[in-house]
Amino acid sequence: MRATYMYGPGDVRVIDVPDPRIEQPTDAILRTIVSCVCGSDLHPYHSMPPGGRGRSMGHEMVGVVEEIGSEVATVTPGDVVIVPFVWSCGVCDFCREGLQTSCRIGGLSGAQRTGGAQAQYRRAPLADGTLYRVDVAEDDERMPGLLTLSDVYGTGWHAAVTGGARPGATVVVVGDGAVGLLAVLSARQLGAERIILMGRHAARTDLGRRFGATDVVTARGEEGVFAVRELTGGDGAHVVIDAVGHLPAYEQALGAVRPGGRVSRVGVPQYSEGPIGRVQFERNVSITGGVAPVRAYIDRLLPGVLDGSVDPGAVFDVTLPLESAADGYRLMDERTALKVLLRD
Amino acid sequence: MRATYMYGPGDVRVIDVPDPRIEQPTDAILRTIVSCVCGSDLHPYHSMPPGGRGRSMGHEMVGVVEEIGSEVATVTPGDVVIVPFVWSCGVCDFCREGLQTSCRIGGLSGAQRTGGAQAQYRRAPLADGTLYRVDVAEDDERMPGLLTLSDVYGTGWHAAVTGGARPGATVVVVGDGAVGLLAVLSARQLGAERIILMGRHAARTDLGRRFGATDVVTARGEEGVFAVRELTGGDGAHVVIDAVGHLPAYEQALGAVRPGGRVSRVGVPQYSEGPIGRVQFERNVSITGGVAPVRAYIDRLLPGVLDGSVDPGAVFDVTLPLESAADGYRLMDERTALKVLLRD
Repeated sequence: MRATYMYGPGDVRVIDVPDPRIEQPTDAILRTIVSCVCGSDLHPYHSMPPGGRGRSMGHEMVGVVEEIGSEVATVTPGDVVIVPFVWSCGVCDFCREGLQTSCRIGGLSGAQRTGGAQAQYRRAPLADGTLYRVDVAEDDERMPGLLTLSDVYGTGWHAAVTGGARPGATVVVVGDGAVGLLAVLSARQLGAERIILMGRHAARTDLGRRFGATDVVTARGEEGVFAVRELTGGDGAHVVIDAVGHLPAYEQALGAVRPGGRVSRVGVPQYSEGPIGRVQFERNVSITGGVAPVRAYIDRLLPGVLDGSVDPGAVFDVTLPLESAADGYRLMDERTALKVLLRD
Repeated sequence: MRATYMYGPGDVRVIDVPDPRIEQPTDAILRTIVSCVCGSDLHPYHSMPPGGRGRSMGHEMVGVVEEIGSEVATVTPGDVVIVPFVWSCGVCDFCREGLQTSCRIGGLSGAQRTGGAQAQYRRAPLADGTLYRVDVAEDDERMPGLLTLSDVYGTGWHAAVTGGARPGATVVVVGDGAVGLLAVLSARQLGAERIILMGRHAARTDLGRRFGATDVVTARGEEGVFAVRELTGGDGAHVVIDAVGHLPAYEQALGAVRPGGRVSRVGVPQYSEGPIGRVQFERNVSITGGVAPVRAYIDRLLPGVLDGSVDPGAVFDVTLPLESAADGYRLMDERTALKVLLRD
């Protein structure tokens, strides 16, 4: 089959690799309907040491079940399934608590390693606990929206929920990438009164307004913090979502949050140390968020995608065939594309 | 009057100063019944630059109203009042939300500066919003318990509440000082199933057991983290309270917390930077807590003190007259005393 591999900074290739096979009785083999490039894929695109054997890329997809292992009970060949970006057993205590990213068998730190989603086929471990069957055809026009449930929409929702977005609250979203925009949508769904989007790409912030942003701040850093404070009577916002992951975004979030408020991080931190002293303590500011257990949110978010009341799939502004995956990375890196959908 | 001043490391003196006077129509003048030395008073006791004009000390007290300004409506001379350690107006939005530490007129950053509580008399600004009248006599035997409501008990409660202590939860408390012990008591009141106290002073951890600790861990650092993990099936605790404030305690808390859990800090951070990257992010660990709005908690905590169902005043193991305040600092610094009550 054809699959996308990264070999170093800016070096993405679609190559021939062996088809995946059932390895465990709890596996399923999926044929990819749609996959996409994630903002987090751009981190290795910038910094991956060259010279290795390559990394199989992609973690977001909707697929069709082709084959199942002997112990798989909840999906069957032909089913269309949303594939959350972390494998989870569905029965351990963490899964039952809705923290599938810490699943005791799968999870972020689990041993369940597979090829990436930017490929024609993929092995899905822990199929019963992970895959979410949806009753749609392969060519359903809502496929881009369904794809967002495998990561970005659930991640934006996680940011808004853990940050405490609620009726009456003011929410700031730092970052106008796909996750930031879907955090705006999520905050709106949760009833936030005012949603301030911090970003400087007009096409993206325009989509943010469509998703529910009431204000857009293009300034960054101290100037951006000042602008948010001006919009909030000097206080800052109840909830500030960091959908970027770089230290300046975190610092900006700390500056924009109201006493007693929360900074919710869903951009993968590209730093290990940072301000965590009195700047939070004296104002009772909490730091929350984390890697999103998107599997937990599909029940809540799917109906809106199916009935068309929300359109999270609008974050995909470019569609390319799998063979052009390298172009997809380039377009996103250049910020020519917001988010690239891969579909043959 | 006589009042306690600090002049440098280890240099505490009780000196003559002018009696306080009404300065604003919202002030009250209080005569001190009881005050005490706080663990946080030991930070300047170690690090205060010598040579200055001295700092008036103390922020915890129960007093008697001696005189009121023309606009004070809720207390009257002769009333016994609990004096929270932060002045608050009681009517601004932050006060109404229960975040009196961010009060728009008083609060931590407010301009309401007064002499300290380790003195015979004290001016109390924003008397109506701050002071909490209790219907007891000056010689009531519950006075030590009432005094804890001005800081340490409310601070322990804040740790437990913001950390999410609840029925079924496992709570770790790092630090066996008065705040740590009262965090144990608070976690117990909130229904926590298992409460692991980390401390190495037997007299203190014994009191911790009386307050509800189910386990005591004397090891620190990595060894302490290992012990907590052993007690929690390898996972760590749902709630970890940092009642110390030094960086190693925070790092220990991060090591002892369960995925999806919270680290709640009520020890004043003696650091400004620290781990705040993927160590939290990948496990969805939140950092919460902060300086406690103890005024908000008196309604909830006072009945237990008055009916004797809890005995937070047991944290005071030494009572000294005000003139011996310097001895009180020394005894606490040497860890001979857990917490020193000052009373003539």
